[in-house]
Formats: sequence, C-alpha cells, structure tokens
Amino acid sequence: MKFLPDAHPTSPKGFSAARHTCGIKASGKPDLALLVSDLPCRWTAAFTTNRVAAAPVLFGRELLAAGAPLQAILVNSGNANACTGEQGKANAAATAAALEAALGLAKGAALVSSTGIIGHQMPMDKILAGVPAIAPRVTPEGGKDFAEAIMTTDTRPKFCGAEVVTEFGKFTIGGSAKGAGMIHPRMATMLSYLTTDALVSQEVLDGAFKRSLEKSFNRVSVDGDTSTNDTCVLLSNGASSHPEIQPGTPEAAAFETALAEVMAHLSREIARDGEGATVLIEIKVTGAETAEQAELVGRAIANSPLVKTAVHGADPNWGRILCAAGYSGGAIAPEQCKLTIQDVEVLVRGTPVDFEAAPLSRSMKGQDVRLHLTLGNGPFETVFWTCDFSKEYVAINADYST
Amino acid sequence: MKFLPDAHPTSPKGFSAARHTCGIKASGKPDLALLVSDLPCRWTAAFTTNRVAAAPVLFGRELLAAGAPLQAILVNSGNANACTGEQGKANAAATAAALEAALGLAKGAALVSSTGIIGHQMPMDKILAGVPAIAPRVTPEGGKDFAEAIMTTDTRPKFCGAEVVTEFGKFTIGGSAKGAGMIHPRMATMLSYLTTDALVSQEVLDGAFKRSLEKSFNRVSVDGDTSTNDTCVLLSNGASSHPEIQPGTPEAAAFETALAEVMAHLSREIARDGEGATVLIEIKVTGAETAEQAELVGRAIANSPLVKTAVHGADPNWGRILCAAGYSGGAIAPEQCKLTIQDVEVLVRGTPVDFEAAPLSRSMKGQDVRLHLTLGNGPFETVFWTCDFSKEYVAINADYST
Repeated sequence: MKFLPDAHPTSPKGFSAARHTCGIKASGKPDLALLVSDLPCRWTAAFTTNRVAAAPVLFGRELLAAGAPLQAILVNSGNANACTGEQGKANAAATAAALEAALGLAKGAALVSSTGIIGHQMPMDKILAGVPAIAPRVTPEGGKDFAEAIMTTDTRPKFCGAEVVTEFGKFTIGGSAKGAGMIHPRMATMLSYLTTDALVSQEVLDGAFKRSLEKSFNRVSVDGDTSTNDTCVLLSNGASSHPEIQPGTPEAAAFETALAEVMAHLSREIARDGEGATVLIEIKVTGAETAEQAELVGRAIANSPLVKTAVHGADPNWGRILCAAGYSGGAIAPEQCKLTIQDVEVLVRGTPVDFEAAPLSRSMKGQDVRLHLTLGNGPFETVFWTCDFSKEYVAINADYST
Repeated sequence: MKFLPDAHPTSPKGFSAARHTCGIKASGKPDLALLVSDLPCRWTAAFTTNRVAAAPVLFGRELLAAGAPLQAILVNSGNANACTGEQGKANAAATAAALEAALGLAKGAALVSSTGIIGHQMPMDKILAGVPAIAPRVTPEGGKDFAEAIMTTDTRPKFCGAEVVTEFGKFTIGGSAKGAGMIHPRMATMLSYLTTDALVSQEVLDGAFKRSLEKSFNRVSVDGDTSTNDTCVLLSNGASSHPEIQPGTPEAAAFETALAEVMAHLSREIARDGEGATVLIEIKVTGAETAEQAELVGRAIANSPLVKTAVHGADPNWGRILCAAGYSGGAIAPEQCKLTIQDVEVLVRGTPVDFEAAPLSRSMKGQDVRLHLTLGNGPFETVFWTCDFSKEYVAINADYST
C-alpha cells in the first residue's frame, strides 16, 4: 500500500467532479460540489445518529436501504437543510431529481448532502439553477475542487488517497472530508466522500468501511457536538478491471488496510483543522479492561474543554486529563494509572512525578501533542484525535448566523 | 419563607467563621476559610462521583460514613489535593487532626475541603502554620469572609439564606458556594456549605438535602467537566431551640422549601459567575416522556459549546439547540418540538417560524437568556442553568497552572 497525500476523490479511474458558486453563501465562495462516476457504483454509507437528522440524511438513508447503484453526489455548503420539516425533505428529493435529469441518470442514482446553517429553508431557485450549470462541467481533474467546495469554516480542503497493488493488479482509493465545527461523530462524520476504482464485493465494502469508520471518524472530536448532517459515503465503481474482491482474501485485507489509512488521515486532518485549532491532540488510552472502557475514557478526555484549553496554553496541567478520565464513566483506579505528555512521565501509579515543566511546555507549542494514559486494567486500547480550544473557536461560533 | 439575599453561613445562630492567608496562593489572596459551630451538628453531605476523587473527598466520605457529629470545616483554596496518592490522604488527615487540636474538638469532628490546582502536594508547612492562626479568629460575623476565602476563579463570593417561621418558632438557613470552572456536578457541586440553626431529624435533613441537590447543583454546568473535589455539606446545630422537626410535618415541608430555594439561588449564582461568563442561561425542558429524558436533553443543551458560543454572540441560532437535543440520547421527535428563546417562538412542530432576529438578538445582550424546549411527549420537565462561552474562558484556562 502506498499512501498518496495528494490524491483525491477523482484520482481513482472513472470519477469526475466539479465545483460551482450558485449563491447560497453570502461570501461568494464555492457552495456546490458534484462527484460523478462513469459507471454505476456499489456503495455504502453511514449517517449521523443525531435524532434531529437533516433532510438529506433522511433522504440518504432511504436511498441506501433501497440498494440501487449510486452514480452521483451533489453537496451544497452554506445551508444544512436541517430542522426544515416536510418542506426540507421535499427540497432534498427535488434536488436529487434535478440532478438525475441533468446527468441523464436512472431514478435513485443521485445522493444529495448539505452542510451549513441549521433551520433555514434551502434557496431552491439557486440550487435548481445551479444543478444544470455544474452538471456538464465535471472533469477527472475536479477532485480537489470538489474538496474545496464542500468546506464551511474549514481553513483548507482535506483530501488524500492510497494506491494498492495486489495479484489482481493496481487499484486506487481517493477521499475527501470537511470539518470544522459541530464535530463529534458517532457512526459517521461531518461530510466525507471516498471513492475507489476497485471492484469490491458488497460484503467486503461494508465490512472494511464499518471497521475503518470506528477507528477513524468515530474517534475525532472538535467540540463534542454531534452534527445533524454527518455523512460518510464510499463509492466503488470497479473501473480498475479486475476480478471482484471477495471476503477473506489477501486483496480484501489490502483494500481494508488502505481504506483505513485514508480514513484515519482525513480524520486527523479534520481535528487539526478544527475551528480555531492550532495543534492536533492525539489521545492514546491503553491498558483498559474492555474496548468500551478505553473508548469512554478517550472520548471524555477528547471532549474536555479544560484539557483542550490547557493544551492551547502549552500548559502541561495533567490533572485535568486524569480528572476527565475520572468522570468518563470508565473504570479508573487512579493508583494504577500512568500518564505521559510528549512521552514525558507526569504521573506513575497515581502519584505525581517531578518533571521539568518549562521544556515540556516548549515541546507542546505549535506541535502535535501526544497524551498517553495507561489504565493498568487490561489489554484494550484506543486512539482519539482532537484539537486545542482557542479564543478563535469562540469568535468563529459566537457570530455565525447573524 | 423569607429569602435573604444577604444572609450567609454564619447567619443561623451558633455558627462562626473566619478567613486567613497562609500563602498557598501566589496572588496573596485569602486561601483558608474556617466554619465552626458552637454545638456539635447533625450533618449530611454529597461528594463528587468522579472516580479520581481528591484526598479530602475520600477523607470526607469516611467521616460521613462514621456518622459522628461535625463541628468544624476548614477549606483551602489554591491546591485541590487531588491526584496526590497516599501522601495526599495523609495530608488531609493531618490537617483535620491539627484543626481538632486547635479548636479542642473530639476526633472526627472536623472536615477538610480543598480546591485549586490538581496534582501538587499540599504545602503542609503553610497549612499547619495557618490552622492555629485562623482557629481563634472565628466570629459570628465571619460568614462572608468564609465565602470569599473559598473562591478560586470566581469573580465574587456567593452566599444567601432564608428565614422560616413555623409553629415551632423561627429558624434560619445560610449558605455559600464557589465555582467557577470544572463545573458539571453529578451528585454534588464544586464546594458549597450550608448551615441551619433548626433542629432537624436526620431523615428530614438527608431527604430535603438530596432532593434539593437534584434540583439545584446537579442542574448546573459551566464546562461539562465534573470536578475531582465536588463537595456540598449541610450542617444543622439546633441552636434555634425548638422541638425536633420530624418527617411528614408542615415544619419539614417549610424547611425543605427554604433549603431548596437557597440551593437553587447558589446554583444560579455559580452559573452566572462561570469562568468568562457574561450571562446566565436558563434551559427549561418540558413535555418529556420521563424525568430521565428531560434531564438528558437539558444536560446536552447546557453542555453544548455551540449553544453557549451562540448565546455569547447574542445570536438566536436556534438550530444548535435542537441539534444538541437530537444527540442527547433523549427520545426526540423533531416534528413534535416547540422552541422559544426569551419567549419568542422560533420553531413550532419541527418547522422554523419567521421571527425578527434583530430585536431578539438585542434582548439576549447582557441579559439572562431563557431557552424553553417542549418535546411534546409527556408530562416531565426540568430546568438547567449554564453560562455563555467566551474568549475569556479560554484565556482563564489556557494559562492556569504555569
């Protein structure tokens, strides 16, 4: 497997994309993104577990359940089409229908996604004028444009990919994702689109996707708020022309390894570019009694405003990390815990270690920060990613809609 | 019942208090607070549910279980004595023993509490010099001094009380509390000390305390971080000389009403004075199927950084409120929800209402903000209190220990 930092959703064969400005965003930045496959795709997806799910999420769940091949995804940024009632659902369906018409696709071959402000009806005049404008403009070079047009408060587009060579020949995986706030995915992330030209059985596709999701997007938090619009989609168009990859084969393992790496990379990029973030924080929890205990502890630390502000101040105030572990609901025995920051021991067997605060603080400034808590209870472990909590996060979110 | 905004822990008969500066805080502000009762007290208390409980919390739990009367409480600010291992426990016990000696009390009559930075051993030389210095200086006028000396990042002391007249005559309740960060109490709050000169049976004391706690300190959040040191103590010394208040009597009801009011007031004051806070946010959830559902929804909204930053910006961005309700784990059906901000309807039956954003925004500036979400599922309701999330919260917490 070769990781490709510069690959994107149209790097795999047979995919094209484009971006367009239809006028949803007051800023005049691109607000429509379109991804199209030359061939009908097997696909799998995960959506938010938020009970207040956005209209395009409700639409997408039905489409996934229907099980027909997918061939196009239209994403708009600037308006989430969430909390918009029956009108919102009708608007999502009308957008998909317009896209199918513009591309000459069968009914049920188009998915729509939305991200932006909650509670405003979609400006359908702009969307319906935008669809026929963007449809003819997709190109095989358009993957980065696609990644850019799905952004909201992200400061940079996020994309990457991987190339896999097996006895079946070569295939490619490409991906893109956007953050940057309301990030605390459970079963899916904000918005991420993954493509592959591999021909993969539905079982391999579903299994590799689900397991990779659990280790990547479901381990990221920016602010602990689980969005109404979380959507992650994986498309497989089989354009690389090889026998279908079956479960339990070396090819399936190679596919899953590459997919997991691409998804983990995009997850770290979402955390690193969290609203107002200056550093990525990696939280490793080891020695847990069960996988669930590891997750509870990691999630609590990743969500703690006090941990995240301390890291922002490059302050090795490790008591806050142990405090968060303590209220996580995980079975913590402080006297068995060991904690390191940037590999420097600060706590061993529940007792503070004398350490040099100044050099440790310097090593946290503007660098990725690694926290490692060992619970000493068992063999399970997990990794979470989050970012520091800055004044800019407040500035960004105190004045978003008005 | 007469609410007394200016009453404090030594307003009830037979209590005295003092403050002292023993040098724990680098700022030179008062860091020792002592509350003493002339008579041995019946008492009840609640401590943090955080598994990383501070040494004085571990000590206090044992003292409460032992069941002996309590007569003195020494609180230090500036050092939490948390994550300090066996040495920390020995230090808490040594402090209590020194206090008992200085006041001539029986063993087991003194409780200690700590608040401040986690993970540093207590400067015992300063504490042990401070105890004999503060002990002789307690006065019946010292309640406000006590409330001041327990502060850390609080901007003002918090105290109040109530006077109750029944057929038994008059009795008084006094209380104090401190915030202002790491506030997300579960079963107790950061630090709160309540006194009464009423003579109350242990059953009435325990029941009234537990139910009032559930409706007050357990409904407050500043940052979602449950402290290692949460402690709430209620002392009853019986100095008002009347027959003992028994369960199920009008006097017990009057006592509980007054206690609940005092505790609710202190809770609102903690939220209003949350780190960096500019406004108090009251979150009312009604129409829930169960009490648990109401609590889940209220807690999620109270903890959402996106809701709290929107309120900071006086931005009626109500979608974030519904989003938080959606991921709370409560059974939310958006199409049945109604939401008001400052009594202005913004969502009815899951559909946005046209409202004038500018005047609503103006009404949120520098004022208490009232959010009311009706779920339309049943008869249960709850109220939570929190504060807005400002750049000052980040500034306060990014550079606290170093």
